[in-house]
Amino acid sequence: MKTYREIFKWGDKREEQIDLNMIRVIKENFGYSDKDFENKHLSGKSEIKNIAASKFDENTQNVFISIVGSENFYIDDFSRANFAYGKYYLDLLRLRKMLIPTPPDAVLCPRNNDEIEKIIAYCSENNIPIIPVGGQSSVTQGTETRKGGLVLDLTKHLNTIVSLNTINQTVTVQAGMFGPAFEQELNLAGYTCGHFPQSFEYSTVGGWVAAKGAGQASTGYGKIEDMVLTLKVLTPAGLIENKPFPKSAQAWDIFPLFFGSEGTLGVICEITMKIRKFRPQNTRYASFIFKDFESAVAAMRDTMQSGIGLPHLFRISDPVETDIAFKTKGFDNTFSDKVLKSLGYKQGKRVLMFVSAEGHWTYTKTVISRIRKKANKFHALYLGKKPTRQWLKQRYTSAYLRDPLMDAGIMTDTIETAVMWDDLVNLRQAVVNYVEKRPQTVLMIHISHVYENGANLYFTFLSPMKKEQEIEDYVQFHHGLVETIVQNKGSLSHHHGIGRTLAPWMEKVLGINSMNVLKAVKNHFDPNHIMNPGGTLGI
Amino acid sequence: MKTYREIFKWGDKREEQIDLNMIRVIKENFGYSDKDFENKHLSGKSEIKNIAASKFDENTQNVFISIVGSENFYIDDFSRANFAYGKYYLDLLRLRKMLIPTPPDAVLCPRNNDEIEKIIAYCSENNIPIIPVGGQSSVTQGTETRKGGLVLDLTKHLNTIVSLNTINQTVTVQAGMFGPAFEQELNLAGYTCGHFPQSFEYSTVGGWVAAKGAGQASTGYGKIEDMVLTLKVLTPAGLIENKPFPKSAQAWDIFPLFFGSEGTLGVICEITMKIRKFRPQNTRYASFIFKDFESAVAAMRDTMQSGIGLPHLFRISDPVETDIAFKTKGFDNTFSDKVLKSLGYKQGKRVLMFVSAEGHWTYTKTVISRIRKKANKFHALYLGKKPTRQWLKQRYTSAYLRDPLMDAGIMTDTIETAVMWDDLVNLRQAVVNYVEKRPQTVLMIHISHVYENGANLYFTFLSPMKKEQEIEDYVQFHHGLVETIVQNKGSLSHHHGIGRTLAPWMEKVLGINSMNVLKAVKNHFDPNHIMNPGGTLGI
Repeated sequence: MKTYREIFKWGDKREEQIDLNMIRVIKENFGYSDKDFENKHLSGKSEIKNIAASKFDENTQNVFISIVGSENFYIDDFSRANFAYGKYYLDLLRLRKMLIPTPPDAVLCPRNNDEIEKIIAYCSENNIPIIPVGGQSSVTQGTETRKGGLVLDLTKHLNTIVSLNTINQTVTVQAGMFGPAFEQELNLAGYTCGHFPQSFEYSTVGGWVAAKGAGQASTGYGKIEDMVLTLKVLTPAGLIENKPFPKSAQAWDIFPLFFGSEGTLGVICEITMKIRKFRPQNTRYASFIFKDFESAVAAMRDTMQSGIGLPHLFRISDPVETDIAFKTKGFDNTFSDKVLKSLGYKQGKRVLMFVSAEGHWTYTKTVISRIRKKANKFHALYLGKKPTRQWLKQRYTSAYLRDPLMDAGIMTDTIETAVMWDDLVNLRQAVVNYVEKRPQTVLMIHISHVYENGANLYFTFLSPMKKEQEIEDYVQFHHGLVETIVQNKGSLSHHHGIGRTLAPWMEKVLGINSMNVLKAVKNHFDPNHIMNPGGTLGI
Repeated sequence: MKTYREIFKWGDKREEQIDLNMIRVIKENFGYSDKDFENKHLSGKSEIKNIAASKFDENTQNVFISIVGSENFYIDDFSRANFAYGKYYLDLLRLRKMLIPTPPDAVLCPRNNDEIEKIIAYCSENNIPIIPVGGQSSVTQGTETRKGGLVLDLTKHLNTIVSLNTINQTVTVQAGMFGPAFEQELNLAGYTCGHFPQSFEYSTVGGWVAAKGAGQASTGYGKIEDMVLTLKVLTPAGLIENKPFPKSAQAWDIFPLFFGSEGTLGVICEITMKIRKFRPQNTRYASFIFKDFESAVAAMRDTMQSGIGLPHLFRISDPVETDIAFKTKGFDNTFSDKVLKSLGYKQGKRVLMFVSAEGHWTYTKTVISRIRKKANKFHALYLGKKPTRQWLKQRYTSAYLRDPLMDAGIMTDTIETAVMWDDLVNLRQAVVNYVEKRPQTVLMIHISHVYENGANLYFTFLSPMKKEQEIEDYVQFHHGLVETIVQNKGSLSHHHGIGRTLAPWMEKVLGINSMNVLKAVKNHFDPNHIMNPGGTLGI
């Protein structure tokens, strides 16, 4: 029996447990008792059936079957339901509530670029929406099939490395390759892709580009747009393909238009990107505790602006996130914790920093030793390598917790923004103030991608759901959150993308003239608006 | 008396002398005698008069005067001749031959952005070409007034720093500010712009962006497109202005469309860019001699791909350029030179490398010491800091030599390209082979901007002019040169831009589909094609 739960579960679909320390935190904050964890709220364990029928008639179906073969054409209820949403909180909620009003009409798994070209040609003529899909990990409704249409699942066949160039240190890879397979093959050849978003295990290279993502080592390696040299994109206006150059001055570059295009311009088929030597033995780690958020931010900024070289992972957890980390790791009220407190690293104020540096051993040694000096200057205490290494071990699996938390009736979501240094502390405070207005809400904040001129603020919130009004309640809360961010000079997103969730704010943030440029580009590539239609990006 | 010579002379307009060592090189290579240096070939010393009349009637002139004031409106022969060309070899030749068939109809110096807006509105309505101009240093006919029209000289009034943000480490500057004034103000505040193209003294920040330029420290700091956070651009389709974010994922970015737009989309008015701490005392230098070009390239590539941190200046001169440097510096056949030769660093094979690293002293120390180790691995000899520092001293003035060389009847020009590592040696050889077919031609090559995945090849050539057929001879030679580069996988440009010189190759290099995207973008911003018209970029 295929259930709704099977669709919304993140990751490897195993049931995750909330550990005892986390349960303690939830009980403390929300006044929960053991009873609250007994039954799964909106478990979604019903069978998927009687999904809205496909709008494709037999003729249309046969056309697609003739292109990709019947074994790559899916029109059953589960397949269509499976590709109706991504992994946004509201997606999960709607699946738990068994709401799928606009499933795709079919799911296709093209075997090569020629087939994609044929599909685009047919869909252009017949005004059929195309939604290119990688790992479906969008948390901004980026792949929601709001107008039905055809989902192109690139992960079944277009998932291999095309070529590895060790002279240029580049790899050419098909869009549908998942992170772990990609990285594993590169590692075997002595390289790393350097791009590790939290969704790494269940996201694809094409998806990274389409959503303009960032990995957890982005402080050193850059975001995906900094790593890519060429793209091959099939659009309704034809194939766009650029030649590889390390840099150039041949008018403005065309291919960056696809970073953040989120499927609205065409199907990203192939990516050539930079790779780096894989030398985990050289990676150095450090962790620190600061007396407060402001001094940790100051140390971070100083590090990024001092020309000492860049770390790769660079994170600060704000006081709430730090406290919860202490509690969930069972560290609070230990002897060491008491020592920390006695040294002035007070609960409710203190802040954890994690850092790593990759590359040649001389580089990692210099960078980490300099950061230790900087941290010292800002009155931080060095905590050794271990906390950072421990954090790295759970960096993907911490996302698995969302499902059991929702089972316990807890609304939990994340939102993130990029902000210049001079607005960062204010913006954080504004969000804290906004969230404080909602009772029983825990807001954890970290900085996880850092640049010379500013950083990314990442907000994770937990709050009991308003039963029976889960969706409306969330929408209202989320709306105010985005408004707060935008009003306080944060970007709409640093790496989650816009999708349909943030699209309504695009014109406000970019201005009407820039929106008109987006629309002009859209109209050029996709004059019939068949590519991922239904509000994506607000174009 | 205002002469043609006054216009084409590069730099501070003082007459430069070819020094004795260089004269020796020219005599050796071209069979010149002292006589050949006596008279100036096509000296351009005639007075500028009877230039093609302005097409602006009195009414049009009055409109512009009413906008900018009569003191900022120029319609005299010299002013219009002065803005007809940039600094391309053919520009200089045409000025020496007193050929200015299409001067601008007037030159305007707007005092603020409002005036620019008014000018664009009027010109849009009346189909008058607008050519925004900074330092006029284009070597690709980027500002040639091929259809007459209105030159907007931004350097007279729009030339100041608007604001300096030391928290974000950014500066906001008007487009018409020249390099030296900009850098000086930043230095006083403790910062550097990090962008030092050879044209630095006579180019503007807006020009750097428009042409997508690279400075000589670009290996460390990146090209101009890597430094800019926001632009304010006035286009016929309205003001385009983006908010500053360190990075974002808000669909594809709009403002990078203006990098390399070369005046075809609008007038770049204001730029916010990254700045870095100014600490010349920390900068470290090194220079090396390698046994051959291939081993120097291998060392360079190894350095860039090893994760040791990036140097800022990083150059190799090929064997010919190395030999000429030895000769013009009077080093050849000295005792030291003989020692070098005896150690296997043979004339005609050996290759100079210059490197510097900027930033924190720990960083520069690590990077330079690692590069010394790498150079050693590739059998290079360390030559100390001095050669690199000496090279830096003449890095702007070496361009001054072009005018006296042309006075001596020598055709001299440069062309540059970006190429991936695996094609670099082949591409260089192909160009060498091509140039060898032309008798009495000296070709010096260097690599001057280096990346993980490839580098920039920079070609300087000298050859006696074909008297009476100077233009046709050059055009034919240059055409084959570009063809050779394109056929051997080089980009059309790494930092000179496209202008009108390289525009005919754009479709071949980019492909028709990408050209159509350029055209769609152009049509959106500038539907009447008034912005820098007449073949720029091939759109």
